[in-house]
Amino acid sequence: MKQSVSFLTLGVRDVRAAVAFYRDGLGWTPTFDQEGEVAFFQVAPGVLLAVWGTAELSADAGIDIAQAPGAFALAHNVGSADEVRAVVERWRAAGGTVLKEPSHQPLFDGTSAYVADLDGYRWEIAHNPGWRVEDDGTVTLG
Amino acid sequence: MKQSVSFLTLGVRDVRAAVAFYRDGLGWTPTFDQEGEVAFFQVAPGVLLAVWGTAELSADAGIDIAQAPGAFALAHNVGSADEVRAVVERWRAAGGTVLKEPSHQPLFDGTSAYVADLDGYRWEIAHNPGWRVEDDGTVTLG
Repeated sequence: MKQSVSFLTLGVRDVRAAVAFYRDGLGWTPTFDQEGEVAFFQVAPGVLLAVWGTAELSADAGIDIAQAPGAFALAHNVGSADEVRAVVERWRAAGGTVLKEPSHQPLFDGTSAYVADLDGYRWEIAHNPGWRVEDDGTVTLG
Repeated sequence: MKQSVSFLTLGVRDVRAAVAFYRDGLGWTPTFDQEGEVAFFQVAPGVLLAVWGTAELSADAGIDIAQAPGAFALAHNVGSADEVRAVVERWRAAGGTVLKEPSHQPLFDGTSAYVADLDGYRWEIAHNPGWRVEDDGTVTLG
């Protein structure tokens, strides 16, 4: 089994509101936006973030998807501590929640913050000086 | 704010068991494996899947991360319906759960199944004939 992720699908209460948060609030451009139904944002080569109603995602999976564990976080890495602070301010202005203000991150001697989107999905916004993406997409740490 | 995801972090009960599931069970190779503490698997250009203890992730975020919503699914796309079935069998043999057996997926006229890992994180295993990744990484649908 090739190790790859093709989609990250967030089940949301209100698709329009969630899409507006990522699109207008954060300035992201959907690859595809079926208004009020589902939207996809490209977030890496070959990877789409999908925003879809929790009920529709549950119906598709044939289970109550909301019963799954939520101890999950996405991370958005940026190039400097100032950029972490700028992203967090934009996140807050767009109506998202700031769970942990930007601060020194001892794990990688950088800067990070934790934020949540309108539905409570957690993102770490981070500047990690040891994190590098090579030309072929390979990630190296430290 | 550039639209990108750098990490997907799954908080797990037992890091060793979760890493063994993805590594030995599914045949994935960690980029980095700090035994029993944390491991990272590259899952797309520039993107790492991290497996980390829920308690450690909560401490890092400064919140009880397990209180976040779980209506979330990852997807792993493959090249044929047969491949969907093969991945699902490997998943089951590795100790994962099959939530929805491979079947016709009307949303994209393909084949899909839903499975859960040892901690209950949901993945869709899918063959979507309309899903394409261009040479530059751009995803097109349908």
